[in-house]
Amino acid sequence: MQEHHYVAIMAGGVGSRFWPASRESRPKQFLDITESGRSLLQQTVARVSDIVPLGNILIVSNAKYKNQILEQLPLLDESQLLLEPSRNNTAPCVAYTALHLQAKNENAVFAMLPADHIIQKENVFASCMIRAFNYAGQHDAIVTLGIEPTRPDTGYGYIHYDQIDRGESVHKVHSFREKPDMVTAQKYIDQGGYLWNAGIFVWSVNTILNAFSSSAPDITDVLTADAAKFGTLAEQDYINDVYPNTRDISVDFAILEPAQNVFTIPADIGWSDLGTWNSLYSYLDKDQHDNVVQAGAQQLIDMRGNLIRTSSSDKLVVAKGLQDYIIIDDGDVLLIYPREEEQDIKALRKGLKQEHYK
Amino acid sequence: MQEHHYVAIMAGGVGSRFWPASRESRPKQFLDITESGRSLLQQTVARVSDIVPLGNILIVSNAKYKNQILEQLPLLDESQLLLEPSRNNTAPCVAYTALHLQAKNENAVFAMLPADHIIQKENVFASCMIRAFNYAGQHDAIVTLGIEPTRPDTGYGYIHYDQIDRGESVHKVHSFREKPDMVTAQKYIDQGGYLWNAGIFVWSVNTILNAFSSSAPDITDVLTADAAKFGTLAEQDYINDVYPNTRDISVDFAILEPAQNVFTIPADIGWSDLGTWNSLYSYLDKDQHDNVVQAGAQQLIDMRGNLIRTSSSDKLVVAKGLQDYIIIDDGDVLLIYPREEEQDIKALRKGLKQEHYK
Repeated sequence: MQEHHYVAIMAGGVGSRFWPASRESRPKQFLDITESGRSLLQQTVARVSDIVPLGNILIVSNAKYKNQILEQLPLLDESQLLLEPSRNNTAPCVAYTALHLQAKNENAVFAMLPADHIIQKENVFASCMIRAFNYAGQHDAIVTLGIEPTRPDTGYGYIHYDQIDRGESVHKVHSFREKPDMVTAQKYIDQGGYLWNAGIFVWSVNTILNAFSSSAPDITDVLTADAAKFGTLAEQDYINDVYPNTRDISVDFAILEPAQNVFTIPADIGWSDLGTWNSLYSYLDKDQHDNVVQAGAQQLIDMRGNLIRTSSSDKLVVAKGLQDYIIIDDGDVLLIYPREEEQDIKALRKGLKQEHYK
Repeated sequence: MQEHHYVAIMAGGVGSRFWPASRESRPKQFLDITESGRSLLQQTVARVSDIVPLGNILIVSNAKYKNQILEQLPLLDESQLLLEPSRNNTAPCVAYTALHLQAKNENAVFAMLPADHIIQKENVFASCMIRAFNYAGQHDAIVTLGIEPTRPDTGYGYIHYDQIDRGESVHKVHSFREKPDMVTAQKYIDQGGYLWNAGIFVWSVNTILNAFSSSAPDITDVLTADAAKFGTLAEQDYINDVYPNTRDISVDFAILEPAQNVFTIPADIGWSDLGTWNSLYSYLDKDQHDNVVQAGAQQLIDMRGNLIRTSSSDKLVVAKGLQDYIIIDDGDVLLIYPREEEQDIKALRKGLKQEHYK
């Protein structure tokens, strides 16, 4: 493990498509959504601690989650938390992390990745990441892991890449493509040369800050009004002042799409973004009637294809005659909804009048 | 109000068809099942306190509910509780009450009635009860209130009565009929002269103890092995010893059916025994899609004819696409069941391996 390799885990999202398990006050990354015994954040930290020293892991999140993060990760020091005072999407988050690390180690090479994904092949992930670190350490390159698509999914962005290997399985990226329609997605699959964009990036501090200078200088300009604050005790107060003034934009739009020096490592790592209840349903083991049940006890009669989850581990669920439903009992909210219509859930949550249910 | 008139409220049942709201540890009579602000027991005590002095009300229940009863009825003295050490059905319960009252007041006339019924016309109920008390005080008569049937219900016992008025709207009873099949129930309705047996009885101590001597002497024999204990501080210990040895049988079978001196007062009192979730559904107001909702908040989409109840008053229920379901969220149990098949619930509860869910 290289002392100038870092991993920054983005843990500030809301996971609103996982409502009501995921709430504003306790988003998906803090939940043991797969019933593994560890939250998604804890799984992610454990996974990357095979790649970089534990002290080189940063958690970038909204300030309101500080206590939850420290409770879930007692081995991390408070100084490893980068706390955003506002939600301005991923580009400002990446710039903040780069400036923070630059002050600490100007030779830093760092990965940014989400806290709430599942990766089943941890060894393959580790070897891909080490290759990415090595390549990004030796080249002025933005390196991303790309996932071999297994179906024409319209829920992911795609990476169109050059199939000529540049060594270490690194390939030049032609372009990033936004979430396609089904016809286009099928074309990507049929043609080959496309990967899913999993939002896992590796770059040196210099490379990413140069990219901001070229493509989104307004963001780094706002954050470097008084750059001497980075790495000092005044950094947090300074960030609290300036961060909310950055532009709300994703790193994909602001940096990846315009950049010419993007490379990808095709990675067969058993990845799932667990973006929705149906993706969790797909991921988990089913009983003989295709039900997934995460509850204390159950008595199911004529139930098929349902996802049933109770936040209380000693709750009994007795149900009859439902097919393809999501049934989520979580504290002060009970959701009973057709699986096929789960895309409604995000808007349903948003439309609630009572903030405390969100 | 007559000082020798008493009302004994039977509050020892389990209400298992109201599971999971009704539990062994907290049966239906202790619940505010109609969301009136008072439990069924509290409603019943308030109702009979218009008929007899508060101090003449007895609560007959299982010993395990002592604390719940005292909490719910702070105006009652502990001496007004008759605590059964075992569940032996209603005949031993009536005999115990009669012997207890005989020691207190040998001229006592008392009503026995269930704690868990709904009576909407309280004034009519009061005037019927006063007539029943008067008749039972002046005659060697078992008097029962009979409910005019509004449909051929197969869930109730029927009273076949003589339509000749004996004064005070009191009629001779020909016979009691057990729960009939649908054809028989329809015949009762078509013929007239049949009432529903609501389990509301009035009799003098002498009349009911004579009836036990004639028809079920074994029960009073067990309870009077040392009759001098009634009315003393030793009564409870004595009852704890002898009561479990009484025969497990209902007062209907043991006393009412063989008795020749049974009379009824037809009573249009807005009665419901609230025996099942469907009877509660029928009783309560519905929204424009025929849903009954007892929850903190709701977001219902394409939901029709459902009964939805959460034990927590601040719980949000979000549901889509269900018709004619019972949805009960109660602490550690969630029930989602077709209304039409509610008769399964009693057996389902009984079959549970984990006692704490019952």
